[in-house]
Amino acid sequence: MTTSFAIPKMSGRAPAWNRWTMRVAELGLRTGVSIPTIKYYLREGLLPQGERTSPNQARYGDEHIRRLRMIKVLTEVGGLSIAAVKYVFAAMPWEQGEHATQAPGDAWPAAEQHVKEVLAASEWHADLDDDPGRTLVAAVAALHELGRSDLAGMLERCATVVAELARIDTDPDDTEARVLTLVLGDVVLAALRRLVSRKDTPTLTGIPLPGKPYSPNASTCER
Amino acid sequence: MTTSFAIPKMSGRAPAWNRWTMRVAELGLRTGVSIPTIKYYLREGLLPQGERTSPNQARYGDEHIRRLRMIKVLTEVGGLSIAAVKYVFAAMPWEQGEHATQAPGDAWPAAEQHVKEVLAASEWHADLDDDPGRTLVAAVAALHELGRSDLAGMLERCATVVAELARIDTDPDDTEARVLTLVLGDVVLAALRRLVSRKDTPTLTGIPLPGKPYSPNASTCER
Repeated sequence: MTTSFAIPKMSGRAPAWNRWTMRVAELGLRTGVSIPTIKYYLREGLLPQGERTSPNQARYGDEHIRRLRMIKVLTEVGGLSIAAVKYVFAAMPWEQGEHATQAPGDAWPAAEQHVKEVLAASEWHADLDDDPGRTLVAAVAALHELGRSDLAGMLERCATVVAELARIDTDPDDTEARVLTLVLGDVVLAALRRLVSRKDTPTLTGIPLPGKPYSPNASTCER
Repeated sequence: MTTSFAIPKMSGRAPAWNRWTMRVAELGLRTGVSIPTIKYYLREGLLPQGERTSPNQARYGDEHIRRLRMIKVLTEVGGLSIAAVKYVFAAMPWEQGEHATQAPGDAWPAAEQHVKEVLAASEWHADLDDDPGRTLVAAVAALHELGRSDLAGMLERCATVVAELARIDTDPDDTEARVLTLVLGDVVLAALRRLVSRKDTPTLTGIPLPGKPYSPNASTCER
């Protein structure tokens, strides 16, 4: 299956839902993304153009904030490349109305509490300053920041299936088996989830697997 | 938790189980790894030194083949970096006896058949030439090549839990929700699997998450 790699044109008229209140500097301050990086995303079509106020200046709106946060989540938490984010954005209709978002500072403590409760329920005592723990908090916080707290139940669902996987896991003394099961299991789970998603949303199959360099039409497992 | 990053010393006496039959060129031919890359792995301690036959020549044994295959599997299928493989190898005792391995050419068709059967059982009709399909075949074939066919049942177990995750999945018309669930779900699943593994094999927690650069003591989700 080949999927079109085209980004919808966004350089024409500004969408009606945008209010043009910010200069690029404010956009940077409010998202933690540097101005050169924002300009790069504008050139690449990952962000819609702002409204020109002079030949060298433009103003930006709430939708820019939301997309910048989405880019940060997909790259920093999800580990996607910029090319992969482009692919994902091309598949998104971007019309799903507005969501009430939380500021990063507010989202983090609530997310941390949520993760603690889920881990305690499974009797996994995690140090949330470790990488796996921080990643869980970052994922839940990201959903709150994007106004998608409705999706945070993902954590409980994942914890349930991981507990099932662990129960039938390999001999604890066979480190080689555990390493192979863990590392290959990550990509097997990710690949299967893309296959299942295909039924409803074919383009999702094309979201690259974690840890794979993104290559839209080439197979990455050449032997 | 900090984990030692030291590689066990492998440059001393050759282990007893090794038979020294190959020059480096044969090692390369039999594993598909280039000679400069093999020399890099030797320098980095990822491969034990061979037995010197002259100041400029050495011979290598079956264990070198096995380790080279393991490096290929972890990097090419599992998406780990070389630094992460170092970390993993440091945690492996490497004494689990010999396993009967299959040549790559023999392992692939059997793996393809296995993947087809598992997908058919779940009524997921996958094109195995797509990236997700090829990754599944590559993972199963890798286990056969490493003589760890005993672990290939991982595929069925993962298919079962993915089917469960999919049943309670998000609204098919909400592409944003599906993208976030898919991408963040990958890292959430991977993070939870590391937390659960910690109980039996603490070092496994340190295997970096897919898509994350390896940084042994730094947190990767700084905000």
